[in-house]
Amino acid sequence: MEEEEFRRAGYALVDWIAAYRAGVESRPVLSQVTPGAIRAALPPAPPAQGESFDAILADVDRVLMPGITHWQSPNFFAYFPANSSGPSILGELLSAGLGVQGMLWATSPACTELETHVLDWLVEMLDLPRAFLSTGEGGGVIQDTASSAVLCALLAAREQATAGQGNEAGLAGLPRLVAYASSQAHSAVEKAVKIAGLGRQQLRLLEVDEVFALRPEALERQLRADRAAGLQPFFLAATLGTTSSNAMDPLAALGPLCQQHQLWLHVDAAMSGTAALCPEFRSWFRGMEFADSFDFNPHKWMFTNFDCSCFYVRRRQALIRALSILPEYLRNQATASGAVFDYRDWQIPLGRRFRALKLWFVIRHYGVEGLQREVRRHVALAQEFAAGVRADPAFELAAPAPLNLVCFRHRGGDAANQAIMDRLNHSGDLYLTHTRLAGQLALRMSIGQTLTQPRHVANAWRRIQEEGRAFAV
Amino acid sequence: MEEEEFRRAGYALVDWIAAYRAGVESRPVLSQVTPGAIRAALPPAPPAQGESFDAILADVDRVLMPGITHWQSPNFFAYFPANSSGPSILGELLSAGLGVQGMLWATSPACTELETHVLDWLVEMLDLPRAFLSTGEGGGVIQDTASSAVLCALLAAREQATAGQGNEAGLAGLPRLVAYASSQAHSAVEKAVKIAGLGRQQLRLLEVDEVFALRPEALERQLRADRAAGLQPFFLAATLGTTSSNAMDPLAALGPLCQQHQLWLHVDAAMSGTAALCPEFRSWFRGMEFADSFDFNPHKWMFTNFDCSCFYVRRRQALIRALSILPEYLRNQATASGAVFDYRDWQIPLGRRFRALKLWFVIRHYGVEGLQREVRRHVALAQEFAAGVRADPAFELAAPAPLNLVCFRHRGGDAANQAIMDRLNHSGDLYLTHTRLAGQLALRMSIGQTLTQPRHVANAWRRIQEEGRAFAV
Repeated sequence: MEEEEFRRAGYALVDWIAAYRAGVESRPVLSQVTPGAIRAALPPAPPAQGESFDAILADVDRVLMPGITHWQSPNFFAYFPANSSGPSILGELLSAGLGVQGMLWATSPACTELETHVLDWLVEMLDLPRAFLSTGEGGGVIQDTASSAVLCALLAAREQATAGQGNEAGLAGLPRLVAYASSQAHSAVEKAVKIAGLGRQQLRLLEVDEVFALRPEALERQLRADRAAGLQPFFLAATLGTTSSNAMDPLAALGPLCQQHQLWLHVDAAMSGTAALCPEFRSWFRGMEFADSFDFNPHKWMFTNFDCSCFYVRRRQALIRALSILPEYLRNQATASGAVFDYRDWQIPLGRRFRALKLWFVIRHYGVEGLQREVRRHVALAQEFAAGVRADPAFELAAPAPLNLVCFRHRGGDAANQAIMDRLNHSGDLYLTHTRLAGQLALRMSIGQTLTQPRHVANAWRRIQEEGRAFAV
Repeated sequence: MEEEEFRRAGYALVDWIAAYRAGVESRPVLSQVTPGAIRAALPPAPPAQGESFDAILADVDRVLMPGITHWQSPNFFAYFPANSSGPSILGELLSAGLGVQGMLWATSPACTELETHVLDWLVEMLDLPRAFLSTGEGGGVIQDTASSAVLCALLAAREQATAGQGNEAGLAGLPRLVAYASSQAHSAVEKAVKIAGLGRQQLRLLEVDEVFALRPEALERQLRADRAAGLQPFFLAATLGTTSSNAMDPLAALGPLCQQHQLWLHVDAAMSGTAALCPEFRSWFRGMEFADSFDFNPHKWMFTNFDCSCFYVRRRQALIRALSILPEYLRNQATASGAVFDYRDWQIPLGRRFRALKLWFVIRHYGVEGLQREVRRHVALAQEFAAGVRADPAFELAAPAPLNLVCFRHRGGDAANQAIMDRLNHSGDLYLTHTRLAGQLALRMSIGQTLTQPRHVANAWRRIQEEGRAFAV
């Protein structure tokens, strides 16, 4: 594609995206296509000759758009937000345009140094423990997801607990290692335990309290039982803001237990970490000074398009020892000097793209105060919604709503809630998803899209009430 | 960022990228900054208030560009290519603009279906075994990297070999599993073996022949020895196009051994897989019908910016069984029906972005014939370079050059070659890297950047000869 053609096509696509974002609220949020419908509209064979960009872009509209669920719609309240923003989209574009590899410092120093620098900024912005700063023994790195971050943390902990023998000799001859999390922890913890060869049977999903937070006494009891059985406890994945209900595990109580029992404490704050931008929401983060590692996703609630998950470790050498490999063809003077970070040793894959650009663009575009303002706005919208639920006798909250996720249900039982959700989602007016809490279905109203305004939340609540009227309380 | 501001900033960035690509050949390829120089130019604290896009873009030039190594330069001959193209960059932009999550079919059906469809196209385009088609029991999925692909293959094989007990009970109580690869295999194999808990001691890096390809008899001998020792062989990672020297492991001989010994055969063709677009290069792929899994990277040599690694499995259920997790909050009707692919079960992370867009854009922009033309062009350039090396008595080839990578050396010994490389790389005129082959340093001339033309290769060879003159043969 020649320079002028790229320019023309690029302008057209920028226009397309600008128009898409401006008009996305009028599109049905949840795609209604049936399995196979999109494929059926695509030609069975690739073209022999090249086609024009106009033809391709026309097919985006004709073929693909019916199969898109609009995550950027202001009426998207499902799962967790995956919000984005103009500066983030443009940061991703620049990353693609530069096309550099960040596997080593030497393969593009700016890619590594901007990432280290911006992740240090975020330590200050979120008031995280200074031990996570790269200027000491810690450091931050961008992962693709919180799933990969918990896997990296688990591997670092595994190798620390086995003095490197997991990597070297393998787990077959070693004592059984046991990992801990609450019953509400993300499924990524179980997936990581399996990938790392530890076995699901060595993952204890512990009892939670009435607000779905891990009970420290349940952890302590299980630790004693496991030690008595000759097992080796080594890892706790605590969550600040569970996926199901935004529950907050009590770090200040769990941390000392981890120290006493030599558990690596990983804190997964995938969505809720962003809340720490605002001092008034930091009480949930008390006890963070005990964390060996921490992760939160700007690609959820900090206006940075997927993927961008910020992962911190207190002792970077523990992570690097677990994941480092140095073949001849990657040797270079900078690596040998020890003066640089080679981020390939901080993650599962080797290659990595320049993801710090979009994060830097976002922080500079909004400024710290701008980001705080947006977070406060979303939390306020969720709290208003929760107040509406509390005030309507047909509905009830299913969990506390500490921040921007409201779990609630119609009092008419599971079938009513399932029907309300299905009807809302099929209407296209909004999209929300469910979970089970204390054995009952609950609807999840997750507020955090960039474009969501008070009218969208008010309209959602009106539509929910409307659908609820068909069911007896 | 409002619609008009996004449009204006987007145009400016499109212009910036167009100009960057048009002028990149005149920039020094390898960044010359010292560790810490980029960070020193960044403010110690993030801005409290937002800044203009113009200010940010100005800092890209002022602060970042000195720290960029130009992977898209036509004078970049280091490592492997990581080529990109206009349509690919725009596909990435659209993916960021739509901002959808592809973790489940239901979270955006088009994201999953386009990926499945385009990966089926590639089966035909590369003449891969039809068993990899999604329409049968196989299927393809986009991974971030070939490293992640080999880890996924290894986990599927581990769970197949242990009847799911690795995931369930963990490796601590199981017989030792042994994995195999050649001494030239990518370090990702060792990293995957470690991550999966198998231990480096259970990875056999086997002897290669005089062209650095795995010797089937070395595999057979080791298999017998390991079985005799009560170990359980389970996995072979064969390589088509090793990183070091582009060596091709003999699949047609290795495949029957894998069948006989029940090894999962994974074929890593990260760079060289693209060559299979052209019928005349397919002889290297003979024996692919024995492969249980296969991976190649359009983000290396198929004009698709990182990340885009195409991973195929013969029996998708083996992969899904190893990686599937289904928590309540991800349950949905489409998943329950079994009629759809949920790609989160085909990879390590949960979340995933719409990477198929850029691959689809690239295939449609170039057409199959256009892609073939580019591959032939690169191979021809490499073969001309190799002919130059053969004709110059001061230099010699260090390995066969089957495709687009030429390993060569000055006859003056390791110190001369190191000096030649360092001087070339510091000159900024070109960038190339090294490896060790048969105990000696070899320089690697890897040809595959989108913008590389005959004059760039000719100039590189002239500069190499020039620097070589300082050293006795």
